[in-house]
Amino acid sequence: MAANGIYHVNGSLGKVITCRAAVAYGPGQPLVVEQVQVDPPQKMEVRIKILFTSICHTDLSAWKGENEAQRAYPRILGHEASGVVESVGEGVTDMKAGDRVVPIFNGECGDCIYCNSSKKNNLCGKFRVDPFKSVMANDGKCRFRNKDGNPIYHFLNTSTFSEYTVVDSACLVKVDPNAPLDKMTLLSCGVSTGLGAAWNTADVQTGETVAVFGLGAVGLAVVEGARTRGASKIIGVDINPEKRIKGQAIGITDFINPKEIDIPVHEKIREMTEGGVHYSFECAGNLDVLREAFLSTHDGWGMTIVLGIHPTPRLLPLHPMELFVGRRIVASVFGDFKGKSQLPLFAKQCMAGVVKLDEFITHKLPFEKINEGFQLLVDGKSLRCLLHL
Amino acid sequence: MAANGIYHVNGSLGKVITCRAAVAYGPGQPLVVEQVQVDPPQKMEVRIKILFTSICHTDLSAWKGENEAQRAYPRILGHEASGVVESVGEGVTDMKAGDRVVPIFNGECGDCIYCNSSKKNNLCGKFRVDPFKSVMANDGKCRFRNKDGNPIYHFLNTSTFSEYTVVDSACLVKVDPNAPLDKMTLLSCGVSTGLGAAWNTADVQTGETVAVFGLGAVGLAVVEGARTRGASKIIGVDINPEKRIKGQAIGITDFINPKEIDIPVHEKIREMTEGGVHYSFECAGNLDVLREAFLSTHDGWGMTIVLGIHPTPRLLPLHPMELFVGRRIVASVFGDFKGKSQLPLFAKQCMAGVVKLDEFITHKLPFEKINEGFQLLVDGKSLRCLLHL
Repeated sequence: MAANGIYHVNGSLGKVITCRAAVAYGPGQPLVVEQVQVDPPQKMEVRIKILFTSICHTDLSAWKGENEAQRAYPRILGHEASGVVESVGEGVTDMKAGDRVVPIFNGECGDCIYCNSSKKNNLCGKFRVDPFKSVMANDGKCRFRNKDGNPIYHFLNTSTFSEYTVVDSACLVKVDPNAPLDKMTLLSCGVSTGLGAAWNTADVQTGETVAVFGLGAVGLAVVEGARTRGASKIIGVDINPEKRIKGQAIGITDFINPKEIDIPVHEKIREMTEGGVHYSFECAGNLDVLREAFLSTHDGWGMTIVLGIHPTPRLLPLHPMELFVGRRIVASVFGDFKGKSQLPLFAKQCMAGVVKLDEFITHKLPFEKINEGFQLLVDGKSLRCLLHL
Repeated sequence: MAANGIYHVNGSLGKVITCRAAVAYGPGQPLVVEQVQVDPPQKMEVRIKILFTSICHTDLSAWKGENEAQRAYPRILGHEASGVVESVGEGVTDMKAGDRVVPIFNGECGDCIYCNSSKKNNLCGKFRVDPFKSVMANDGKCRFRNKDGNPIYHFLNTSTFSEYTVVDSACLVKVDPNAPLDKMTLLSCGVSTGLGAAWNTADVQTGETVAVFGLGAVGLAVVEGARTRGASKIIGVDINPEKRIKGQAIGITDFINPKEIDIPVHEKIREMTEGGVHYSFECAGNLDVLREAFLSTHDGWGMTIVLGIHPTPRLLPLHPMELFVGRRIVASVFGDFKGKSQLPLFAKQCMAGVVKLDEFITHKLPFEKINEGFQLLVDGKSLRCLLHL
């Protein structure tokens, strides 16, 4: 048993761990919580004990198998989580057993041209988002096996719907030992994505104006990002009237339900802001919404930040000449955070209360009720359902 | 006769001037060089004597009446020029008779929210580009009349195909008294547009890489902008093989003729630049070219700058998800120069030889041969044909 024995299961160091995981066996089929075997970490990998995990729309999408090419079963989904290092593989020097950690789907290897570029970007050459990837980079194999010894595929560099998982150290962020791990789970994806879009991508300044289309967890994290930057007007847009209260609790100053007005949303927003907002954020994954978001910004300097996932066959709903009045459009992945470099500070800002995370966790369930958690998200009832393992 | 009598025709101050102009009477019809009457300048307007004018593709497009909604005849086209102030209207304090000036189609009133915004933009609220505008802002009327006394419409805030024209002072830039007016004509549009796109929009840095799609005057001005910024690689792309020599004379380091290679241009460029250029410039006004330009940039930080004019019914040839790997696309009008504020310095930089203008003037003709000048551009034989009045 290693120094920090708590995290080694019966002297697990270097051995296969048998534990529970929620396994997806096919598109839309209920996840099966069952025993799986988790291999020890290889070179530059880390095995972690997951303490909390939560469910994001990207998990939903993968579970439904919405993109046929991305289907790989059996698979352990999940990418928002927090936990404790159980053991580290060869070459890992920035973490040790017992460290508190948050996995990130958008890694940072620190070695590639992207990680080393002086140009602002967070697109690691080795561990960027790749929905087609389902095995470990080291050997192209899985670290999970089911009771029959067959491999279980990985998901988004993380696979957190398991009591233990193996991730590349590039996809793991060490946080303060006193960080509240339940809330830190939110930093793995949704909150970092939304808040970072306001802080890093848009770089909202005090007194500027913002419109957020779609008040799910990501959209509300944008609101929190804009609030903490001192935005003078934060307009939330959602067709769900219940989002008004939720949005106000976090920081929207105005709410628009497109179903309740007679003019296009962008016209309403231009009326409310003397010509348009500085920044609009598309968090709905809908191209009609994207166009409204684009037209809602002020000409000359407005910027639309795309956060929603859009089906690829359709084109951007913009005419080239519409760019000529100075409206810009960019996308943002993981809030433009370089995960390993920047998340530790972000975690501290959350701990210091600069950023408030409480409103984002709307439900808590034990891990074995994960299918209930999925249903809450499908029904639009939850922002984040936290599963404790 | 006023103090600077040279520029007053027989004591023209405050009186109608009769002079020659090239008048467009219908789409594609040869311009008619004939006598017109030019009214004195009204409040905040300036009447100028044009000494040189040149022909740009936008003149061609308007002459052909390519966009039906923009047709207004009879009309005096032309927007690239240089000249001397003949007289100023009430309230004009920054210019006086005899000053050397360059008209700009993209004005800068200095008073509107755009001109006063701390956000980088050059989109004047009052004198921005408006292809539908054909009269003066002051009274909604024309300052030109033909021999029958009928109004002749204005074009792009300038109408420079005339010995005298009246423009708003917001659309006129005073340059150094020693500036060579023949070359200053290029600052009115093409050279400022291309060079400014490299300097102001992309902000190319020493050692960065650039691809320019379409080596007309604007594209070559981008090349000059990239060269003066110390770009390490400037790839010119054109289907006209003659552009190789012309491009090299200005500063391209590499030339690609898409007809001479077997792979898509963007693949070739990625091969040549270890993954893509920092900036690509679309100066062809073709959506297929625009897509190639977009894909030619490096993921993570590449930026495509759209300069070409594209027909509006078609959408941007990009999928929303293609923005998620960090490629950006923006448009640039008038090189993001704020004309009145920034062109005087730019003119000095040209005079000092920082920027070289000689290569851009390929032909010179007397004003009455303006239709020959149009044909040279139609035939792709000229970059800029300078007409002297």
